[in-house]
Amino acid sequence: MHVAIPLYPRFTALDAVGPYTVLAFAPGWRVTFVAPETGPVLDDRGSLSLTATTRLADLPHPDVILVPGGPGTLDALSDPALVGWIGAAHEHARWTTSVCSGSFLLGAAGVLRGRRATTHWGWLDQLAAFGAEPVSERVVTDGTVVTAAGVSAGIDMALTLLAEAADTATAQAVQLAIEYDPLPPFGAGSPKTAPAGLAERALSLIG
Amino acid sequence: MHVAIPLYPRFTALDAVGPYTVLAFAPGWRVTFVAPETGPVLDDRGSLSLTATTRLADLPHPDVILVPGGPGTLDALSDPALVGWIGAAHEHARWTTSVCSGSFLLGAAGVLRGRRATTHWGWLDQLAAFGAEPVSERVVTDGTVVTAAGVSAGIDMALTLLAEAADTATAQAVQLAIEYDPLPPFGAGSPKTAPAGLAERALSLIG
Repeated sequence: MHVAIPLYPRFTALDAVGPYTVLAFAPGWRVTFVAPETGPVLDDRGSLSLTATTRLADLPHPDVILVPGGPGTLDALSDPALVGWIGAAHEHARWTTSVCSGSFLLGAAGVLRGRRATTHWGWLDQLAAFGAEPVSERVVTDGTVVTAAGVSAGIDMALTLLAEAADTATAQAVQLAIEYDPLPPFGAGSPKTAPAGLAERALSLIG
Repeated sequence: MHVAIPLYPRFTALDAVGPYTVLAFAPGWRVTFVAPETGPVLDDRGSLSLTATTRLADLPHPDVILVPGGPGTLDALSDPALVGWIGAAHEHARWTTSVCSGSFLLGAAGVLRGRRATTHWGWLDQLAAFGAEPVSERVVTDGTVVTAAGVSAGIDMALTLLAEAADTATAQAVQLAIEYDPLPPFGAGSPKTAPAGLAERALSLIG
């Protein structure tokens, strides 16, 4: 199974690297970072560069598309090379997936019309502009399209996808290999459970 | 607060990028990827390169040291530039931390002698060779030394560290920003809860 993760300036690193690590540990799976041109791509903090090793044009038909989110999504929405690649690759892909605001790029490519989908809690309602039905769940599967909530949700999505695409035992073996037995020190990871007033402060960290 | 994450060949990407994302989202925190020489460093899967932007020698006194693990740790243990840098930087650092087998590099640098520490479940006992007391917990704090269990545990460690180094509300705001409200589809993330027989299969995925 060949997974392509498209990178664009100001993506959020964990959106890409969480599911990357899950899927790259799976036996027989291969993950390639792609971009309009090869080379390092700078993240949203300006302090991490991941290398795109393959041009979008040179990997038109991956089995799985995994689009990370990040503050750079807004600019990326008007990049015809990236959005066009997503739309065309989706026609052939077995799964088309996103993390966080990566779902807006799926939306711009026309992939979400009439589908249930999710994104970061901060802008979930905006998915409706792409013809999607916004769903407040951590991982949403609608046919071959799988979308995840904000940033860290890509890890849960990748395990869900791996169980579906391979089998449960493979996903569990990867989960154990990466010791994914999460124990956050606080229960503040969702606006439903976070202390009052924290949402504005959290959103101010992202931009 | 300035965090240095040293990279070496065949590190595990999520070990570095999980805590990176947490700490780089914190206001006033800066994270720099360092290595003996600048440039891209290839991970354990051979398909991801993170760029080291600063030479170890040019960042001798970070506030926080965060050492990722990975199959490359064994070779890195005999790299005097890296191990020497960890030991010397630790003398000045406010916190010295590791994820997964990164703790072996702390051990080689003499940082763990007489301290409680943890690492990936697969080789926890081996920490004793460095004079540490192995502890089967997700995040272990002993004075200014904080160690995390395998791969994904670095996210929990970084939130714990941030709460201690800044304050609880800052850590909670970052947790909400990255929507870290984990919901793994299986309970297989620890050998204590995984189905029988999965440990060997999980370890075979790592090497």
